[in-house]
Amino acid sequence: MTTLRVFVYNPNSSQAMTQLIARSARDAAGSGIEIVAACGPATVPPSIEGHHDEAMAVPPMLDALRRAEADGAAAHVIACFDDPGLGAAREVTAGPVIGIAQAAMQVACIVASRFSVVTTLPRSIPIIEDLALRYGMAHALRRVRAVDLPVLALEADPAQARALLLREIRDARDHDGAEAVILGCAGMSDMCQSLSAETGIPVIDGVHAAVRLAGALAAGGYRTAKTGAYAWPRDKSGDLDHTAAPLRKPAQ
Amino acid sequence: MTTLRVFVYNPNSSQAMTQLIARSARDAAGSGIEIVAACGPATVPPSIEGHHDEAMAVPPMLDALRRAEADGAAAHVIACFDDPGLGAAREVTAGPVIGIAQAAMQVACIVASRFSVVTTLPRSIPIIEDLALRYGMAHALRRVRAVDLPVLALEADPAQARALLLREIRDARDHDGAEAVILGCAGMSDMCQSLSAETGIPVIDGVHAAVRLAGALAAGGYRTAKTGAYAWPRDKSGDLDHTAAPLRKPAQ
Amino acid sequence: MTTLRVFVYNPNSSQAMTQLIARSARDAAGSGIEIVAACGPATVPPSIEGHHDEAMAVPPMLDALRRAEADGAAAHVIACFDDPGLGAAREVTAGPVIGIAQAAMQVACIVASRFSVVTTLPRSIPIIEDLALRYGMAHALRRVRAVDLPVLALEADPAQARALLLREIRDARDHDGAEAVILGCAGMSDMCQSLSAETGIPVIDGVHAAVRLAGALAAGGYRTAKTGAYAWPRDKSGDLDHTAAPLRKPAQ
Amino acid sequence: MTTLRVFVYNPNSSQAMTQLIARSARDAAGSGIEIVAACGPATVPPSIEGHHDEAMAVPPMLDALRRAEADGAAAHVIACFDDPGLGAAREVTAGPVIGIAQAAMQVACIVASRFSVVTTLPRSIPIIEDLALRYGMAHALRRVRAVDLPVLALEADPAQARALLLREIRDARDHDGAEAVILGCAGMSDMCQSLSAETGIPVIDGVHAAVRLAGALAAGGYRTAKTGAYAWPRDKSGDLDHTAAPLRKPAQ
Amino acid sequence: MTTLRVFVYNPNSSQAMTQLIARSARDAAGSGIEIVAACGPATVPPSIEGHHDEAMAVPPMLDALRRAEADGAAAHVIACFDDPGLGAAREVTAGPVIGIAQAAMQVACIVASRFSVVTTLPRSIPIIEDLALRYGMAHALRRVRAVDLPVLALEADPAQARALLLREIRDARDHDGAEAVILGCAGMSDMCQSLSAETGIPVIDGVHAAVRLAGALAAGGYRTAKTGAYAWPRDKSGDLDHTAAPLRKPAQ
Amino acid sequence: MTTLRVFVYNPNSSQAMTQLIARSARDAAGSGIEIVAACGPATVPPSIEGHHDEAMAVPPMLDALRRAEADGAAAHVIACFDDPGLGAAREVTAGPVIGIAQAAMQVACIVASRFSVVTTLPRSIPIIEDLALRYGMAHALRRVRAVDLPVLALEADPAQARALLLREIRDARDHDGAEAVILGCAGMSDMCQSLSAETGIPVIDGVHAAVRLAGALAAGGYRTAKTGAYAWPRDKSGDLDHTAAPLRKPAQ
Repeated sequence: MTTLRVFVYNPNSSQAMTQLIARSARDAAGSGIEIVAACGPATVPPSIEGHHDEAMAVPPMLDALRRAEADGAAAHVIACFDDPGLGAAREVTAGPVIGIAQAAMQVACIVASRFSVVTTLPRSIPIIEDLALRYGMAHALRRVRAVDLPVLALEADPAQARALLLREIRDARDHDGAEAVILGCAGMSDMCQSLSAETGIPVIDGVHAAVRLAGALAAGGYRTAKTGAYAWPRDKSGDLDHTAAPLRKPAQ
Repeated sequence: MTTLRVFVYNPNSSQAMTQLIARSARDAAGSGIEIVAACGPATVPPSIEGHHDEAMAVPPMLDALRRAEADGAAAHVIACFDDPGLGAAREVTAGPVIGIAQAAMQVACIVASRFSVVTTLPRSIPIIEDLALRYGMAHALRRVRAVDLPVLALEADPAQARALLLREIRDARDHDGAEAVILGCAGMSDMCQSLSAETGIPVIDGVHAAVRLAGALAAGGYRTAKTGAYAWPRDKSGDLDHTAAPLRKPAQ
Repeated sequence: MTTLRVFVYNPNSSQAMTQLIARSARDAAGSGIEIVAACGPATVPPSIEGHHDEAMAVPPMLDALRRAEADGAAAHVIACFDDPGLGAAREVTAGPVIGIAQAAMQVACIVASRFSVVTTLPRSIPIIEDLALRYGMAHALRRVRAVDLPVLALEADPAQARALLLREIRDARDHDGAEAVILGCAGMSDMCQSLSAETGIPVIDGVHAAVRLAGALAAGGYRTAKTGAYAWPRDKSGDLDHTAAPLRKPAQ
Repeated sequence: MTTLRVFVYNPNSSQAMTQLIARSARDAAGSGIEIVAACGPATVPPSIEGHHDEAMAVPPMLDALRRAEADGAAAHVIACFDDPGLGAAREVTAGPVIGIAQAAMQVACIVASRFSVVTTLPRSIPIIEDLALRYGMAHALRRVRAVDLPVLALEADPAQARALLLREIRDARDHDGAEAVILGCAGMSDMCQSLSAETGIPVIDGVHAAVRLAGALAAGGYRTAKTGAYAWPRDKSGDLDHTAAPLRKPAQ
Repeated sequence: MTTLRVFVYNPNSSQAMTQLIARSARDAAGSGIEIVAACGPATVPPSIEGHHDEAMAVPPMLDALRRAEADGAAAHVIACFDDPGLGAAREVTAGPVIGIAQAAMQVACIVASRFSVVTTLPRSIPIIEDLALRYGMAHALRRVRAVDLPVLALEADPAQARALLLREIRDARDHDGAEAVILGCAGMSDMCQSLSAETGIPVIDGVHAAVRLAGALAAGGYRTAKTGAYAWPRDKSGDLDHTAAPLRKPAQ
Repeated sequence: MTTLRVFVYNPNSSQAMTQLIARSARDAAGSGIEIVAACGPATVPPSIEGHHDEAMAVPPMLDALRRAEADGAAAHVIACFDDPGLGAAREVTAGPVIGIAQAAMQVACIVASRFSVVTTLPRSIPIIEDLALRYGMAHALRRVRAVDLPVLALEADPAQARALLLREIRDARDHDGAEAVILGCAGMSDMCQSLSAETGIPVIDGVHAAVRLAGALAAGGYRTAKTGAYAWPRDKSGDLDHTAAPLRKPAQ
């Protein structure tokens, strides 16, 4: 059986979180799927906590995705719940790119009619709401809740983090009318299954969902559409002296 | 390696179409996924061409899904582009239920920013538009086009059907601004790959997408949420004489 | 004066509830309107509490509507707040079909700018929210509340049911910013007027609203459009051997 | 049998159009409904062709509605397709106020899944689209078309007007995917039934729909909610010298 | 340097409030901007507290705007948070017309991702929500809160008013997830800056925002589009005897 | 009179385009506004033609904005119609940041009820549509049109570019129902006024609109909200060794 490679990229520079993500990814990977995980270089923030951090993390991510594809990756996962640079990532690769927020929300919309998201910092709440709007799932999103802990503190005290998550998930289940809860941060990957067991509702981890979807799409031969928003970037290196490089005319 | 069973149900009674669907499903199934396909009994319409047909087809479908799950199916695919009875199907099963329209639209929204749908009958156009609205993907849907041929005529003259589809896909690519096209009928499954090759844009088949997603979700251990809209139906057999069966209180 | 017949169909099999509904319907019927009420056969659930129940109830409902129209009904009311099978019902009849949820919401949007709905079971909350979305009234819907009592328990202890409803209506008025409240279950029909008097805000019963609208539309000569989503189902009985019955080509 | 009075008000000052409207209204009125029709005074524009005209027409309309209610009207119809002053009208009356655009769109959404509107002037197109948005029916509206004729020219040359309308209705049916068409101007009332017969699709006249709805709501005892947006205007005559008149505290 | 005149119109008849508004307007006016302020005549309500009040205030406002433009105003501000008659105002003038609600919401959407509005009366809540919907900013609006005090009472006891506003702003900041708050009444203009300082979040005053925008648009040479919804009203004075005045044909 | 500085940043590396932008900006700047213009370094693409280009351009832009603010800029304009990195830019600055697309659309929604956008490349069409969705102006956007010319070719042959723009603007005016047109590319700045004169409808240039708005907001003392999505990035430099830098707790 052919093995398909799924490249799982953590846009921040935290190797500890990357190991956690890689572990979740491998647990999620089906047979025939090989996981290669990487994270951003030391020059990018150690955690992604807002638009600025996203912006700094995206250029190295694009390089990493291109190299991963050249090295044989058939699909890519962006393992950060802000889905940073999703459009750009789809431009520079042929294999499908799955953001863990979009993946988790898609899965939530198959297993439930309403869901909430629990994330780390309050400042991420409007960002995640905007993702739901962008993906068309705002009608199914009950509420985005924050445990008010920085991403990296989850690793520092997992027990406290788990207790906080458990409380939010119960509140989402009992008060939001959420039938499922999405954990809104890649650093929460490993807590997912036990939280589900304890609360009695699906608790969805984005890395897990994204790796499953990535494997399915790669094996299904799906590739990113290249005639519109995700077309290959045009090589403009010769443009500045007005010798416009030939335009690869997109359709429409 | 454990094999997971995905049950693919064609709600209409056309065995010819079911064979076509089963073939596509098996092509789509990854390793470790076993496909069991079935269709509706002779009492349901031979093709689903509107709400009435959907309604007639759903009760036998619910029985079939229950039996399939009792027989070991881990996930289910409703192989009709109207996604008939999707909510009911999710109530009577534990394993995730994927409708081929929702699956195709979710995949389209990963590989493209805009897509069109090509279906058989004009009367299906508003129905498919309403599905896109329901799934939150109306913003990404450019247009629903119809080749104006009944579902079963596709089998009668595949060459003509293909020619009509090809023309609509090209028009969608060139005039709608569609970056991908979804084939909006389960009976079109087998034409998908060659149409994609010929038009240069992703042409997505719902059966293929749904089977891939179903396999991924089953292998990922995802199960339908049971505390809200998709809760198990309550047994009301003793209610009519006011001895209300104990209410299994859902959360919230 | 010509009498117009409005057929009021309760999709579940509870004769007690049907009598209650018929009484409300007759109170609501204007002069010149004759009410014929019926309910589902014993084979359908005694109450409709979710998608599964809806699905089981719809096929017999379609038969009943067809027969009622053959017997002279000029319009039809589906007396279940899930508006089950509304699209299918509109396909198999010529006279307009009014679901009590759509009717109640339309009336609410004439007499108020914002409304809440009070229903029986929590699991119905997302279903009713989705109806509001479908009908375009989500912006006017403040909240869907549930008294957490099965439909048939309303008949068992009307006083308790009324007390629960009263409390929810007051909360909706005082906390949701609702200017009117819709009772979201056909079984609540008879409590409506006194609740309105007691709370000082319009409390709208779907059966009452739907019968009024049905009478108005029937008398106005309105008939369902037959060139698109609600076209007559095509007779496909000869299709399976590829002798496609002549297609009644809809417009567009 | 008690007669209920429906007051039909034409906000412009054209008596010719008012007679046409009154005739349609009486045709539409069911038994037990008495129509009283009036129009604006000579000081308001002879036709309503935009926001300015609406604004000039509304204050006299509010007076007329108040007087009509004092004289016994149980419900009111605003017979102008812009539904001008609908909110204000609902504040100054107790009986329900129905705008002919809202009424027509509500009826269209019962008998069809998609509709177009044909109106007189192109400048009205965005105004009517905005009404559909406001009423939540934008998803069902295919297109607003204009015959590009001023309102009063319809009376000048009815044959030409009819020919133009017929052409637009056919185009809407054949090219927009409209299953029903609404005539978007009160001055078109009398052409409606024959256009429907000739085109084979429902052609809905707002005056007809609104009078039917008004009769139904009046007979049903519905009254405008008075605790929110449509509360009675507060008497502020003593306010300017800071002796604030006692506030009738609305709920919430 | 050329001075541009911005006309600031308070639609109600309260001279006290107009002075307050004029003061805010002058504080907001940049160099090169001259403010001319006026209010409605004694025949209009002393405060605008709902649709009726708006409707009564608009016709005199249209006259005032026309005269102001004839006198040299380059842009206009409607200083009432209901933005009454905004469409009509844009029809009768060439210079841009800015409503203070639209201005405040536009500014809020530049400096923040989410905002709440604090207004005076609860009955205004749905009206302001509907404005946000109309302007497309509903997704950014967290909540509309009311201090439950009539507009003119703000002048009577500014200290109490301020205390109430402060409490609502803090609650919006701490409980709504609002990053900025808009004061939803022209009478609150003078309290804005100190409230901002005290709460640590932007508190936006509509008069201030609108005057700034009006000055910018006037200086930028922007003028209202005249080929569609805001076209000049047609002179219909000769229409009633069917000598239709020549139609100034708008484009499309 | 104090001079306020507005920093106008062109995210690409084309100095020719920057000069064009700076010229437009200075024309647009009111009295008391000083323009400082800059562009990206040679390491960023010479034109922004998609998500990838945006992503590459944003990090240097953030540095430039921070330095500009340290040097005294009171507001910032991102002079690229994709509004790249808008959220990140708002995080790293205190003075308001205006993207030229958001500015142009806001202005369009003051002077018109419907507008179209004319841009350069077809691949930008869905990107601009998504911006309109994000800003809540999708209801007012008629259509995004592309002249199908790379950004830098505009400079190569301005006459041809102008002819193409003129044709699209006329088509937008005559066929889209657009009352105003926005030029969707910073490189079109200088053509704007003459196109408006020639077509008779407002033709809005984003640079012009944004500079006007930036000047107004700066002079008005508006600053970006810092308690939510646009909060200052947290200094995480000490996090990787789990000595979490003290969290500046945002509100809510």
